[in-house]
Amino acid sequence: MRDFSKDLQWLSINTATVKMSKGKEFPLDQIIDACVRRNIRAISPWREQVKAVGIDRVAKLVRANNLALSGYCRGGMFTYSDDKGMLAAREDNRRAVDEAAQLGATCLVLVVGGLPGALNGKAAHNDIALSRQQVHDGIGELLDYARSMCIPLAIEPLHPMYAADRSCVNTMRHALDICDELDPNLSGSIGVAVDVYHVWWDPSLKQQIERAGPKRLHAFHVCDWLTPTRDLLNDRGMMGDGVINIPMIRGWMEAQGYNGFSEVEIFSSGNWWQCDAETTLDVCIERHHARV
Amino acid sequence: MRDFSKDLQWLSINTATVKMSKGKEFPLDQIIDACVRRNIRAISPWREQVKAVGIDRVAKLVRANNLALSGYCRGGMFTYSDDKGMLAAREDNRRAVDEAAQLGATCLVLVVGGLPGALNGKAAHNDIALSRQQVHDGIGELLDYARSMCIPLAIEPLHPMYAADRSCVNTMRHALDICDELDPNLSGSIGVAVDVYHVWWDPSLKQQIERAGPKRLHAFHVCDWLTPTRDLLNDRGMMGDGVINIPMIRGWMEAQGYNGFSEVEIFSSGNWWQCDAETTLDVCIERHHARV
Repeated sequence: MRDFSKDLQWLSINTATVKMSKGKEFPLDQIIDACVRRNIRAISPWREQVKAVGIDRVAKLVRANNLALSGYCRGGMFTYSDDKGMLAAREDNRRAVDEAAQLGATCLVLVVGGLPGALNGKAAHNDIALSRQQVHDGIGELLDYARSMCIPLAIEPLHPMYAADRSCVNTMRHALDICDELDPNLSGSIGVAVDVYHVWWDPSLKQQIERAGPKRLHAFHVCDWLTPTRDLLNDRGMMGDGVINIPMIRGWMEAQGYNGFSEVEIFSSGNWWQCDAETTLDVCIERHHARV
Repeated sequence: MRDFSKDLQWLSINTATVKMSKGKEFPLDQIIDACVRRNIRAISPWREQVKAVGIDRVAKLVRANNLALSGYCRGGMFTYSDDKGMLAAREDNRRAVDEAAQLGATCLVLVVGGLPGALNGKAAHNDIALSRQQVHDGIGELLDYARSMCIPLAIEPLHPMYAADRSCVNTMRHALDICDELDPNLSGSIGVAVDVYHVWWDPSLKQQIERAGPKRLHAFHVCDWLTPTRDLLNDRGMMGDGVINIPMIRGWMEAQGYNGFSEVEIFSSGNWWQCDAETTLDVCIERHHARV
């Protein structure tokens, strides 16, 4: 297993982790500056953060600072209740691929969507099998385009508590089934983003990481599961503050040949987003060394 | 599929659903009275509610009113960090079996426990595989005693969001693996409690219900998954108010020969526990007829 204790070679910061500083928006250009000052080599930005600063400017900053993008967040939300929704999702995902290409991201992370409308509190139906079919088809269609743009897709299975509103793909097994169906030749153009927060509980996790192998392991996201967890979305913990055995899971990834970044992705409205982002970054570094 | 629209033959009320009325404790004797007045034939009481009224009195009320117990909540919490914890769990589970027998419950529901200490905010370790081994061994030991008392055990896989603090058995697949290991002859002495809230998201649910078959399907619990869900524990919805296709899952159960009660189990600190319990029961009945 790689030694993370001595340098920052494999640390990436998902920019949602510091999207707020002391409860106020912390813009992406300042995040980049704060990362660069710490010799952090990679980030994974969110589209709305990129948009707020302007993608051309972000692309320039990324290049000027020789930053890698461990991923781009995010494509997906493939589920729909009418043709208009289907076309909008298709269009938006192609734009996400274009943006990922412009920024030089190593992959486009896909949060696939749940029951259409559920995220706004009103699901159009309760047929999760239908959503899963739409996700399968939507990824299949996007895959051709993503291949043409040389952007690998990374399906991120989300924790089952997001099945209704954010992602109806909730296990590695399911995500890898989709990969196998759409890309039986293991081309590397589609794989998974393994976020320990979403998958740590799964008794078949090790087996599924082994099944994935190096061609399908596109990203590795870390944070921690707190006890208690006070909010379904925005109460993630800093690595080491919760109950996930992160080094064990990283070991499983690396045993399969994963040698990419370890990306810190923490949504924390009550804690880290209330801290100074500079402090949060310092703690990310400290924990990357000691607890990942 | 059985017709629930015309009578209450197969409705059971998990007594946690009405443990509060207008925000105040609603004791079990009053719950029983309110159920009996509505011709509800079955309940599934919680141990602390039984204790508060006194088990002898509860047993008398149950018998006098010819109530069935679709289950007894609950045994489990098998995980421990020292010998004292192990012995306490063993002792407590045997008592739960005794109580279930005294009350004439059809099964003892098992919530197996997560990482020891996590429920109090401080996990003793982060080795979920160890917890799973302890659960396996704990159930195995309890099973002999439960058999001798003629009380079937029902492992209730809990939603993965409870993996850390309440149950490290989070899927039907895992629960049935344990059943198969401990009871390869399908004696009926151990099976699962299928709560739609915990398992609705699982893409292999139908397949696992089929795998379970009539000998392993010991209980069926209903409520609904709300969008948004505002609390990990106490924001369950009334059947029909969320996104779970309950009739579909009931159909899968009954196709395997399940012909027991449909037990309403709703934890709802913000909504139903604030209502008058009599109203809550009326709505349970209405939704049992129309949405289960």
